[in-house]
Amino acid sequence: MSELKSAVNQQRLTDELDQLAEFSDAAAPEVTRVLYTDVDLKARAYLRQLCTDAGLAVREDAMGNLFARWLGSEPHVPAVGTGSHIDAIPHSGKYDGTVGVLGGLEAIRTLQTTGFQPRRSLELLMFTSEEPTRFGLGCIGSRTLSGNWSAEKIAELKDENGQRFDDVRIAAGIQGSLGDVKLPADYYSSFVELHIEQASLLEKANLPIGVVTAIAAPAALRVQLEGQGGHAGGVMMADRHDALCAAAEIVLAVERAAKSSGSPDTVGTVGICRVHPGVVNGIPSRVHMEIDIRDIDFDRRNRVVDAVRATIGEVSQNRDIDSKTELLNSDAPVSTAASVIDATEAACQQLGLKWQRMVSRAYHDSLFMAGMFPTGMIFIPCSGGVSHRPDEYASPEAIQHGVEVLALTMATLSA
Amino acid sequence: MSELKSAVNQQRLTDELDQLAEFSDAAAPEVTRVLYTDVDLKARAYLRQLCTDAGLAVREDAMGNLFARWLGSEPHVPAVGTGSHIDAIPHSGKYDGTVGVLGGLEAIRTLQTTGFQPRRSLELLMFTSEEPTRFGLGCIGSRTLSGNWSAEKIAELKDENGQRFDDVRIAAGIQGSLGDVKLPADYYSSFVELHIEQASLLEKANLPIGVVTAIAAPAALRVQLEGQGGHAGGVMMADRHDALCAAAEIVLAVERAAKSSGSPDTVGTVGICRVHPGVVNGIPSRVHMEIDIRDIDFDRRNRVVDAVRATIGEVSQNRDIDSKTELLNSDAPVSTAASVIDATEAACQQLGLKWQRMVSRAYHDSLFMAGMFPTGMIFIPCSGGVSHRPDEYASPEAIQHGVEVLALTMATLSA
Repeated sequence: MSELKSAVNQQRLTDELDQLAEFSDAAAPEVTRVLYTDVDLKARAYLRQLCTDAGLAVREDAMGNLFARWLGSEPHVPAVGTGSHIDAIPHSGKYDGTVGVLGGLEAIRTLQTTGFQPRRSLELLMFTSEEPTRFGLGCIGSRTLSGNWSAEKIAELKDENGQRFDDVRIAAGIQGSLGDVKLPADYYSSFVELHIEQASLLEKANLPIGVVTAIAAPAALRVQLEGQGGHAGGVMMADRHDALCAAAEIVLAVERAAKSSGSPDTVGTVGICRVHPGVVNGIPSRVHMEIDIRDIDFDRRNRVVDAVRATIGEVSQNRDIDSKTELLNSDAPVSTAASVIDATEAACQQLGLKWQRMVSRAYHDSLFMAGMFPTGMIFIPCSGGVSHRPDEYASPEAIQHGVEVLALTMATLSA
Repeated sequence: MSELKSAVNQQRLTDELDQLAEFSDAAAPEVTRVLYTDVDLKARAYLRQLCTDAGLAVREDAMGNLFARWLGSEPHVPAVGTGSHIDAIPHSGKYDGTVGVLGGLEAIRTLQTTGFQPRRSLELLMFTSEEPTRFGLGCIGSRTLSGNWSAEKIAELKDENGQRFDDVRIAAGIQGSLGDVKLPADYYSSFVELHIEQASLLEKANLPIGVVTAIAAPAALRVQLEGQGGHAGGVMMADRHDALCAAAEIVLAVERAAKSSGSPDTVGTVGICRVHPGVVNGIPSRVHMEIDIRDIDFDRRNRVVDAVRATIGEVSQNRDIDSKTELLNSDAPVSTAASVIDATEAACQQLGLKWQRMVSRAYHDSLFMAGMFPTGMIFIPCSGGVSHRPDEYASPEAIQHGVEVLALTMATLSA
């Protein structure tokens, strides 16, 4: 095991994470890397080059999911996959997703260095658009790879400017048919994703590794409120149908419903609230909101979604405002595979790294991979549990521990 | 009087209002014309040409306030002024302000047509930036003309991009020193502004004319809330400091404070609420809000402002969020001049037009002109009381009535 530990090139990985963060539409330390933007395409090219330099066979599918394969001694049996995403929400940090991509690459390079020869091929997978920034839907790549959403539905997704997903990806120079993206059922024998925890349980417990046993179920609502605008001086309070006042009631109802679900595992967030016309002396006539609700318990999550929808209806009626609510996605939680959990825990044991089992409250591409393949996740602590912020941080040592566990887990699973 | 009525060229005025509406950064029927933008400068040039065509002597001051004078038989005595603004908030309509500018011009042309010869000069004044869109402060022109704000303070105003007022107006090609804008105390003997009501009292009472006796007192607050962002899945509800939840409480507190002031004359509006980072899976870390509070009673208005400020403090403390509140403006209400009210009511009487006295709940450049000169306002009904919206509408007949009353009022005041 000391051989494997010393084969991890911590400095190289740190440098590559720093380098990747420079492909950004926001000034450092902020990272903004949105699907199919110029910086996203440049970051993909950088990653492709690193994979080629590592001697991996690189291919890209029709939506830009990138596969980099180290051929095993039996190249025709199902491979062991690892990977994550490199897109970053606006004004965020540099470890979310990227640790699983560049760390996955480092795990493969580490095994190469030790002279290990896998029976099954080992493959790094960079998923297109885990973040919902551009098309309002998270995990576009893994949803399509796993058949969770059809290629036809994905093709018709529209961004804020009304551009279709299919047109945007073609304009980005990505070729082929979306219908070919879905993976065969025997493509991977196992899949395992390394990721920062995005919460602070590991840090508080002073543990280097979390072994994920379940991934919480996300749902997202898009709400359009249409009230009546007017002059902020001229229209009396009694005559108003202010869309922002309605939105404010809904924001507080989401918070209340999540807090009173009966479990601290429920979270609810209104991350988007855009006001029209958005001028100081005009009554808000229209509000666009997006609501994110998650829980590890599917039914409880659904009860909160229902409660929020009921409130939207009541508030709209009380204020005589039109509302349109759209369920963008409503996914079920998953349990990870016992085989991957076992391999990961055995790796921790061999490496002398303490771990705990835990639930992933954030969702990841593994949520969808788990629908098709035996799947697991490895968490490492991040400072203060901070994520989706510029001050997101995981230390090089923490990342190295994750890479070691990932490498050994993949080695075991590739046997 | 039938001579004066037939001298109003209703078609010409309707055409000019339509033409002016085409200088817009939004597609018809919406109008967006923000201070010193290209469309604003083109609209000014159009107005200047109309004034020149009417034989008026045109000058512009160092902030672009435009003066068009019909010389009286005694050109050195104080003049009678009329006017309003042509800037339009984003996505609004084509009558707010413009009826007082083009209608003021039509009133002067009408008097010219009848062969009337004024003793005092009659002057049309187009005020720069009545709307607060660009610099967060309304009535920049009239505040400076009347000395309500100093030229030094105005010069340092910053727009959303951090550009100084003084730099922007120079870049727009407007020359001279802002220190020269303030008018002498004897510049006008009277000032009278024609405007759409922006409320529906006249329409409900089926009256063509409102004679304004007082203008409500506006105040505006700018609030910056700084909470803590984070991953919408990863951060438990109990650990959150969500800036949008705080903003939602404040929005509802503004509504509640205005509604419970003890008088229906109080209005409170949160027209601006911008959320950062504004992504569905990120907890809002920052919110920028602007709050507008008005009343015809100064002390009651101030009590509501104080109540809102207290709520901002409490909410920030309860949620452990930083807040910064800035009072952008806090103006006193004014009463209009008895001499102008009398002249206007006499004009209505002579023209056979019914009227009622009323309060202006919206504020106007006349609020500041009234601090310097005997000032009055003439209101005409607008459809449904709608304003600051694309469906704002005043009929050609309603506007003609306003022009008739304005012309006769100015004729009386010019004696």
